[in-house]
Amino acid sequence: MRAVALRSGQIHVRDDVPEPQPGFGQILVQVKACGICGSDLHFARHGPEMLALTKEMRGLPSLGVAPDVDLDQDVFMGHEFSAEVLEIGPDTVGPPPGTLVTSIPILFSPSMEIRPIVYSNEVAGGYGERMLLSAPMITEVPNGLDAGHAALTEPMAVGLHAVNKSGIRPTQGALVLGCGPVGLAVVAALRLQGVEVIVASDFSPTRRALATTLGASEVVDPNDEPAFDAWQRLAGGRSLVVYEAVGVPGMLDGVLRDCPTGTQVLVVGVCMQQDRINPFFGVAKELNIQFALAYDPMEFAGTLRSIAEGELDVAPLITGTVDLDGVAGAFDALADPDAHCKILVTP
Amino acid sequence: MRAVALRSGQIHVRDDVPEPQPGFGQILVQVKACGICGSDLHFARHGPEMLALTKEMRGLPSLGVAPDVDLDQDVFMGHEFSAEVLEIGPDTVGPPPGTLVTSIPILFSPSMEIRPIVYSNEVAGGYGERMLLSAPMITEVPNGLDAGHAALTEPMAVGLHAVNKSGIRPTQGALVLGCGPVGLAVVAALRLQGVEVIVASDFSPTRRALATTLGASEVVDPNDEPAFDAWQRLAGGRSLVVYEAVGVPGMLDGVLRDCPTGTQVLVVGVCMQQDRINPFFGVAKELNIQFALAYDPMEFAGTLRSIAEGELDVAPLITGTVDLDGVAGAFDALADPDAHCKILVTP
Repeated sequence: MRAVALRSGQIHVRDDVPEPQPGFGQILVQVKACGICGSDLHFARHGPEMLALTKEMRGLPSLGVAPDVDLDQDVFMGHEFSAEVLEIGPDTVGPPPGTLVTSIPILFSPSMEIRPIVYSNEVAGGYGERMLLSAPMITEVPNGLDAGHAALTEPMAVGLHAVNKSGIRPTQGALVLGCGPVGLAVVAALRLQGVEVIVASDFSPTRRALATTLGASEVVDPNDEPAFDAWQRLAGGRSLVVYEAVGVPGMLDGVLRDCPTGTQVLVVGVCMQQDRINPFFGVAKELNIQFALAYDPMEFAGTLRSIAEGELDVAPLITGTVDLDGVAGAFDALADPDAHCKILVTP
Repeated sequence: MRAVALRSGQIHVRDDVPEPQPGFGQILVQVKACGICGSDLHFARHGPEMLALTKEMRGLPSLGVAPDVDLDQDVFMGHEFSAEVLEIGPDTVGPPPGTLVTSIPILFSPSMEIRPIVYSNEVAGGYGERMLLSAPMITEVPNGLDAGHAALTEPMAVGLHAVNKSGIRPTQGALVLGCGPVGLAVVAALRLQGVEVIVASDFSPTRRALATTLGASEVVDPNDEPAFDAWQRLAGGRSLVVYEAVGVPGMLDGVLRDCPTGTQVLVVGVCMQQDRINPFFGVAKELNIQFALAYDPMEFAGTLRSIAEGELDVAPLITGTVDLDGVAGAFDALADPDAHCKILVTP
């Protein structure tokens, strides 16, 4: 079958990827749509550093990135997908062929080992024609929801998880730094949870317009007014949770320097490089930094339900669709925040 | 009167400091004992950087370090004190002369402006013969408690605050990195709160012995076994709170790299320099970093009560006593963790 692979930092399309064969507990599916995630762009650019850090790190949960990925071999990617059931594995219960499903991107091997569907030399992901899913992990897409919209369950669940992890109360205020897909997912989740004051900041007018569409009460261009100045002007009296969704070096230290005393900082932008901070700022203002990653199964299912019920309109986020041959170009195009937000791959 | 001052990084003793005059709301006291705090050593060495960071920082509470301290003029210090009442200011209610008191190191001016008793060109601190306190801030020292022991209320309250801020539950475990006075105060507070598993780590055998005395269930020499290895061996199954009480560059990143998934990291060691971290570690393991500073009035009063009731024995921490002429030497001596823990100044 055809699938996109990353090798030594370069995207290429293969025609000869072996057809996945569903084993016990597995379901073969036809990919209908798969979003390109910012973490895939990061990984394509910073894969070696990321892998080195993973190997250096201790105490990683079993669900994390496998530290044995070989970047000089083909790496399959694509973890924001919806797909149609083709074939159920032996001795396995699953929905009938033709059912549209989505899934947390975790595959169990027939012997129940965990195989994350994120970056893998073995496990095909959503940037390919077909892939395997685990029967206990799949969720049927309800209400005749469009396959492209269903594919946005995964990134939107990241926003919900970050908001849940922060424990923000409706009477607090939120400042969302960065309105890429993750920042926008945070904005949408904040709105769904009834937070009234949601200030979102981004250099791109397109992204700011999207933030307004998804529920930001105010948007700020940091070129016109520093985000924390805008916060003070709009809602300075409220207790603040900052969602850092930019993820480039220097952002975190700027937040620590400029935020009010006692602020909670939720880091949801994945900065892959080493960063510099002044712990002095954190100590002097007794700040709290909570790092957030992914979501739990309830958050994933809840997000799909919100999309399917029409509470959460993801349509404005989708700014392009490409086939497998267009993935490399889409990776480049996503560098321009005014041109694109979420590009879907339809293999 | 005589008082120690810091000027351009050098400690010197002055004989001509003007006698403090108590105004409205103030009480003139005779200093009986004042502990030398690690933050004073930091300030003597890194004063310019610390001041630059304070000026750069926004959102500082009014209780913070005044950013207008002139390091090329005499700076008065000493914020861990006990003292005897000499004279009550006009129209002010206070205890009779001769009463032993301690206080949160905050002075209100007669017009109720806040003047921290930490680093000041104006306000005399505990490294001098006499100083002013604020009537509403003082607490009488009960039970005939020794003035030297009462002076340890302040640093021990820092440990209690850090433990409270972490919200640790008795069924969790604690790993305390660094057994200087702050780390030891954390150990003592953990023990008082009923936490059973308290692993404390320090290179110094003297400091490790003190940690055991104050309540650590296990002590570790990082030269023999990395602290997180010891933690895994002793209590790896428990949910973990790490108290980082070393405060030198690189410590925090090492904690993020080595700690288990979901760990809460309580930063109570004040790292005055810029530090490097890999946010990737924090994201991959969804870590939480809480910075802690100082204490609230209830924590201060509760700590004094614990010491006076004999629940918290601070005597082992006191390893030396000097007069004002001995302060400069004591600053140097405190660099050797095997020689000293807490040196009291008795002006």
